[in-house]
Order: sequence, then structure tokens, then C-alpha cells
Amino acid sequence: MIQAKGYAVDGPESKFEPFSFERRDLGASDILIEIHYCGVCHSDIHQARNEWQNSIYPMVPGHEIVGRVAKVGSEVSKFKEGDIGGVGCFVDSCRTCENCNDGFEQFCQKHLALTYNGTEMDETTPTFGGYSSQIVVDENYALKISEKQNLAAVAPLLCAGITTYSPLKRFNVRAGQRVGIVGLGGLGHMGVKLAVSMGADVTVFSTSPSKEPDARNLGAHNFVVTKDPQNLEPLVGKFDFILDTVSAAHDLNMYLNLLRTNGAMVIVGVPDKPAEVYAFSVIGNNRMLAGSMIGGIPETQEMLDYCAKHNITSDVETIPIQKIEEAYERTVKADVRYRFVIDMQSLSEEV
Amino acid sequence: MIQAKGYAVDGPESKFEPFSFERRDLGASDILIEIHYCGVCHSDIHQARNEWQNSIYPMVPGHEIVGRVAKVGSEVSKFKEGDIGGVGCFVDSCRTCENCNDGFEQFCQKHLALTYNGTEMDETTPTFGGYSSQIVVDENYALKISEKQNLAAVAPLLCAGITTYSPLKRFNVRAGQRVGIVGLGGLGHMGVKLAVSMGADVTVFSTSPSKEPDARNLGAHNFVVTKDPQNLEPLVGKFDFILDTVSAAHDLNMYLNLLRTNGAMVIVGVPDKPAEVYAFSVIGNNRMLAGSMIGGIPETQEMLDYCAKHNITSDVETIPIQKIEEAYERTVKADVRYRFVIDMQSLSEEV
Repeated sequence: MIQAKGYAVDGPESKFEPFSFERRDLGASDILIEIHYCGVCHSDIHQARNEWQNSIYPMVPGHEIVGRVAKVGSEVSKFKEGDIGGVGCFVDSCRTCENCNDGFEQFCQKHLALTYNGTEMDETTPTFGGYSSQIVVDENYALKISEKQNLAAVAPLLCAGITTYSPLKRFNVRAGQRVGIVGLGGLGHMGVKLAVSMGADVTVFSTSPSKEPDARNLGAHNFVVTKDPQNLEPLVGKFDFILDTVSAAHDLNMYLNLLRTNGAMVIVGVPDKPAEVYAFSVIGNNRMLAGSMIGGIPETQEMLDYCAKHNITSDVETIPIQKIEEAYERTVKADVRYRFVIDMQSLSEEV
Repeated sequence: MIQAKGYAVDGPESKFEPFSFERRDLGASDILIEIHYCGVCHSDIHQARNEWQNSIYPMVPGHEIVGRVAKVGSEVSKFKEGDIGGVGCFVDSCRTCENCNDGFEQFCQKHLALTYNGTEMDETTPTFGGYSSQIVVDENYALKISEKQNLAAVAPLLCAGITTYSPLKRFNVRAGQRVGIVGLGGLGHMGVKLAVSMGADVTVFSTSPSKEPDARNLGAHNFVVTKDPQNLEPLVGKFDFILDTVSAAHDLNMYLNLLRTNGAMVIVGVPDKPAEVYAFSVIGNNRMLAGSMIGGIPETQEMLDYCAKHNITSDVETIPIQKIEEAYERTVKADVRYRFVIDMQSLSEEV
């Protein structure tokens, strides 16, 4: 076994502490990644604190992982030592069901091995995430990453990037279209960058007037403060596509009404209460309300290649692992523009 | 002006009475249709009884109109005297907005002249529907109908047919797909016939076990009684497309969960309360919840041509206009298989 170290929480109320654990020895198709950076996703916080009531402790969170390939198994073909590799929200799936065959591993009908707070395909062995020194992963569930980009800023693409890229691509967002992004956080800021890169005319909807300069710096063409519903009235029926990145419960009808004929709105957040949807909000203009959940391995690779080509990364604030508690507090207060990324060098400097 | 007669209600509580009124003289692009048959849509009842709180009285309902072209205006090119013509849910629109230009007249951004309980483009002159002897309509808002089919059975295609055809076509329902139809009434029975004709494997979801033989006669391959939610469990993730024709408030999540990856469910009914939609019902499997409202003129013509080619009509019970009150009572009790159609001959036989 390979000795690894990381930071773990031991229960919903506990603080992060240094944690030693083992990664499996490399199988024939495995690679060993020395983790350089790991993004801090809001879902890390929900799970560390057992807010989804499904936490397994001790927990090493982290599913926005980028690092250098230190070793490859005997049958690995996609990577060689020294390459940059990434790991996203899952590390394995059944590989035989319809969804796995179609490249939608995230919807595996048998078992999805989440990168952390999950289990391997034996449905027993716990998985540990990216707040750690290294990870062993089957090459088929690792992503190839360009060496040319800022790797800290690439890390959040593995979750925030694919979560926003996938619905934009699925609904064929393109030049000449009017696109709305609801909420400007870790997901929303990626949505803006990606939609702008696809040529769309992008409007950010936010409750915070103070975010307008940021929205415009990210490339947004318009900014609408949603606290006053009157601001939305002139926009009814004007949008081809809306990506709603807000996780808190909120009214979907007011955004659905902004869609033109055959327009679609996609939600990627999961509020704890159901949304009340009026039939006429979708029947009028033949509208669609869709959901989207991260993306499969082929599309995640496509997204990374797209971002490398278009020089798109996340706006990040890099922190040492020792500041993870502070980063959680600030993330909960939305006091980050727009993603914390842990520099794992800080872990190796610990005694 | 042209003298017409029909049956009208004078208020939400009033009974239908014979009613004399005028149709406009033919303009250059108008045609005069002598109405042979008019379907009885559930929305006729809602409006006759002011259940949508927007009724204009006296009201002559009816928007599933089929008859013979008796006269054509000087510039009419699509019809000649003696042709069979139809009129659906609307008789005019602005013809210049984006939706009109795109063939989605039903979503006209200026004014949609509904066939009855509406106003002409002057937004003043009331419109009267198909429970009447004849109608004058611009040829651009009339549909061409094959002489070869049973015209009484064609009438409901003008509303029930297009309402179900449009979403099936929009989501490209085809052979090899598994399709669900929720509810077996006027809309649902057309949904079954159309989806079967497109080659899909069709399952009817109904609360009434007694409808199974009918469902199978209509061509459905499977029938699921929804009163026991356990019946749905083995079907989770199995459907490519679901058409939900139920107008009463009901749980959408149980049907959304039946959709496979990228599957879509379309609702065409408008319950008086909003639906509670769980985010995970659409985020899981990247599902879509869409709405659909009748169809534009080009697609309605396409549907009629399709039905003529595939020999599809509605299952109807033909009644004389004098039995309209009884037909309303039975429609409300769902005691019709599956659409009442008024034979307008009964009107001309009145003194």
C-alpha cells in the first residue's frame, strides 16, 4: 500500500486535522497522481458537516484535483510519468450499464464510486478525496490536463467547470443567443466565462448589486439586480437559455418567464425544498426546465480541452491546507472570488 | 354581413340556447366554411362556465372545426369552393412578430385572436366559435383537410391532435423508444395513437384499471395502474419520453423519475395549482420538464397531413347540438370515449 497524508474531519462538528491513510498499490490500469492543487467546492462543506445526512467519517474531502502523474500501471496508455492529470467527482463506475457505455458515468445504474464520502466498486472500501498528498485512480477515470495553464486555476474546472459547460453544450449555446446566468458564485462565474466564450450575449442575474463590476470583468454584457422583480419585466420572452446556479430555494417561474419560444432553463443547484412550478411557466412559449449533474468522463475531457484552447480557468484564491477552516467560513459567507484552491505543497511542508 | 346561427351561453350559469349572429363579409383573403362538425373540448366547458375567470358572453364555443369551403375571397389561393377546411384554436395573429414569423402563431407577441371567447385583431370585436353554422376566416389561419377521412373524427385533431403531435415531434419520438402517456382522455388517446404510429413502445399510465382494454385497442403496448406507486418502481429510468395529459393537480416527480438519461416529460394540462418539482427529479439523469401549447399553423397542417397519411383520427361520439348540455355533463365525468363531436346538420334542421 502507498502511505498518503491529508486533512480529514472526524464528525460533523469536528475540525480538520492531519490524517494518515493508505492508497492502494497500483493496478495495471491505475495511475498515481501527486496532488498539487485541490479546489474547495461548496459540496465539500455540506458533506464535511453532514448536511446531506450521508457522511462517512473520517472524511478527506476534495473532488477538484490536479497533479503530476508520478507512476503508471503496466497497462496504462493514456498517461506517462510526468504528465498532468486530474480527478473530478468520481473515480469509478460499473463500465457496463447503458449510461456508462454512453459516457454518462455520473448516472451509472449500478454504483458510482464518488471521489470521497463514497465507496469503491466493492461498495465497502471508503474513498478519500483530494485534500491529500496523492491519489491512485484508474486511468479511465482520470483526465488529461494541459501543462500550459495555471494548474491552481484549472482545478475547479473538474467540478464547477464541467457542471456549467455540460448544460451550455447540451443546449447548443452559441453566438447570436441571449443567455442568462443566475447567481455569481463558484458555478456562476464559470458559467459566465464559458457562455461568453461560446459567443452568447450574457446577462448575469444577481441579488447583489455589488457584483456588477465583477460580472462585467468576467465578460458579462448585462447585469440585472433581481431584488426588484420590475427589473425583469422588460426581459420577458427574451432569453434563449438560462443557467440557474443558485442552490438556495428560490422562485423559478420568474426566470422561466424570461425564456423565448422553445427556450430552456437548466438548474444545477439542489435546494432542500421542491420548487413550485406553474404549468403556464413552461406551457407558455413551449419552455423547458431541465436539470444537469456534472458530466461524464468524455465530456469532462472535452471541457478541459476546450478551456485549454480558449484559455479559460477559474478565478481562484490559493490557500495552504492549514487555512481550510477559514476558507470554509468564508465560502459559506460567499466571501471568495470565486473559488478557494488548496496548494498541497503546504501539506508536504508539515512535519 | 353573413347571417349565422349557433348555440351560445349567456353567462356562467346559463344553459345553451339557439343564437343568431353575424359573420363578416368575405375579405380578399377570407374563406367561408360551412361547418359540418365541431369537437367538444374540455376547455369549452371551462370557458362556458367562466372557470378561467376570463369569459366573454354571449359565448359560442368550439375550436375543433371542420367543414366545406362555400365561398372564397378574391385573392384566396390555398382553397377553392368545395374543399374541406378546418379551423383550430385561433383565427388570426399579428403576422409580424418573431413567433408569427417562425410559425409559432400561438405565442404571438402582440395579440392572438382566439377562435372564440377572444377578440379579432382590433382587440374589440368578439370572436364566435364552431358551435355554429358557418365561419369566416383568413385562409392563412385555415387548415386543408383530406376528403378521405371521416370528417367527424378529424375535427378533434384541430386541438387534441396538434396538442399531442407537437411535443411528440419536437422531442423526435421514434421507433426504438419507450414512451409513456399519462392519462387516457381526449388528449391521451390521441397521444397513444400518434406515439404508436411513430413506432414507439407505448405505455399508458392511468388511475383507472378499467381503461386497460381501451388502451390496448388504441395500440398501447403496456398499461400501468398508477394508484399503487409500487407499480412504477421497476420503471424508474426506463422512458425516453413521457407526455402528461392530465389537467388535475398531480405529482410530477414520480413520472420524472421514470425518465432515462436526457429524457423529457412534457405537460400539456394546466392545473390550478403549481407543481412541486424536486431539483433532483430533473438533475438526476439530466432530465427535462417541458410544456407545450397546441401548435402553429405550419405544424398543424403537418399534423393533419400526417394523420391523413397514417389514417389516424379521433375516437368520437357524434351528437346533435341539442344534446350539448348532456355532452358537457358526461365530459366532466370522463364518460366519453374519447371526444364528443357535434354534427352541425342538427342545427340546420332547427326551425
